[in-house]
Amino acid sequence: MTYSPGLHLVATFLTHQTATLQHSAAFKVLVDELISLHQLSKVGEVYHDFDGGGYTAVVCLTESHLSVHTWPEYGRVTFDVFLSNYRNNNHAKTQAIYNRIAAYFEPFDTTLNELTR
Amino acid sequence: MTYSPGLHLVATFLTHQTATLQHSAAFKVLVDELISLHQLSKVGEVYHDFDGGGYTAVVCLTESHLSVHTWPEYGRVTFDVFLSNYRNNNHAKTQAIYNRIAAYFEPFDTTLNELTR
Repeated sequence: MTYSPGLHLVATFLTHQTATLQHSAAFKVLVDELISLHQLSKVGEVYHDFDGGGYTAVVCLTESHLSVHTWPEYGRVTFDVFLSNYRNNNHAKTQAIYNRIAAYFEPFDTTLNELTR
Repeated sequence: MTYSPGLHLVATFLTHQTATLQHSAAFKVLVDELISLHQLSKVGEVYHDFDGGGYTAVVCLTESHLSVHTWPEYGRVTFDVFLSNYRNNNHAKTQAIYNRIAAYFEPFDTTLNELTR
């Protein structure tokens, strides 16, 4: 079996929906739904809510990881999702997760880097 | 205060030093040394060692995150480090951490993406 690089999507969103940037709870529910929907394997996670608003989180998967960091005072979110292709080609899942998360934050401006690694 | 984007370094290493890719314990010691040295704030971490070798890990910082995923059978490592500049300009720390981790894996081939976000 040869190695097939996976897709890593690295995004920065600017949004007016700053309520979604304050607390991690609803975001976590969405992430867990997506992990279940796409039959990924979570091996651990860290969610940290800052006093005064904003959160930082990482979710570790056997397939790789997701991360999010929010700055409600700037209407700014950095989000990334990386799924390797060790057992399956996960490009479509990576893209689907990205699309759903982007829809959640309703950005008016998006910077997206698509890395194959 | 305006927002100053942080530096996110996203690397793929190929290495012959596959012993460093088998188990996470020594890598974790190094990461914790770097977090202490650079006075960063860890809020949680996940390290997962696979049966048969290789590991996947994420470290959550108030400043953002680090991630690593290894495939010893391919001599392959993906590593990334992202430090935001919320309170301080952390570009030099990001670069220093990257350099030390790269030295640890002794890659003969490196693909590096430098993202400002």
